[in-house]
Amino acid sequence: MSSQLQSAMEGLISVFHSYSGKEGDKYKLSKAELKNLLNGELADFIAASKDPGVVDAIMADLDENKDGQVDFQEFVVLVAALTVACNEFFVGCHESNVQKKENPGSKKV
Amino acid sequence: MSSQLQSAMEGLISVFHSYSGKEGDKYKLSKAELKNLLNGELADFIAASKDPGVVDAIMADLDENKDGQVDFQEFVVLVAALTVACNEFFVGCHESNVQKKENPGSKKV
Repeated sequence: MSSQLQSAMEGLISVFHSYSGKEGDKYKLSKAELKNLLNGELADFIAASKDPGVVDAIMADLDENKDGQVDFQEFVVLVAALTVACNEFFVGCHESNVQKKENPGSKKV
Repeated sequence: MSSQLQSAMEGLISVFHSYSGKEGDKYKLSKAELKNLLNGELADFIAASKDPGVVDAIMADLDENKDGQVDFQEFVVLVAALTVACNEFFVGCHESNVQKKENPGSKKV
């Protein structure tokens, strides 16, 4: 049986290949495949960005070797950065709630 | 409903905090917490390494700011590296199987 961490790692590999295998090099995301992945898997993040060129910007950022495709290692860099940002957001929310509970009236002054 | 990718990212955050919250700074893994995480979540990887000092070596590698603790960002670097290695292993196995199917007798020469 997989641990929670192994399941998460398997999920990352599985989701990448479910999109990268559609066309061209089946181990790399073309721009169309990346767009489908972002819209299908990270719709909330894409919607939160008001920039209509967000997919192009992400592609340019991720495609370190400039071959017009995103390989698994480049994809993991995106996921890692997003996950760190999410974690900081959750920790910030939690800390804010703890402070409110400890000092319920402190914001009313 | 979370996508598969969002679930994987939530899994990474959740598993980190389930270990980091046990003692000391609840947002960082102490050496004991890291050891518990590695043994509980990545037992196969740890067992595969014959090096009895593997936990110390991982701690030293991950602890970039040398505070004797591993924060979430440092943890994600480990997970990213392991996931890329796993992906390369799976892709290698898959390619090897494809070649065997395409040239079933080629290895018998």
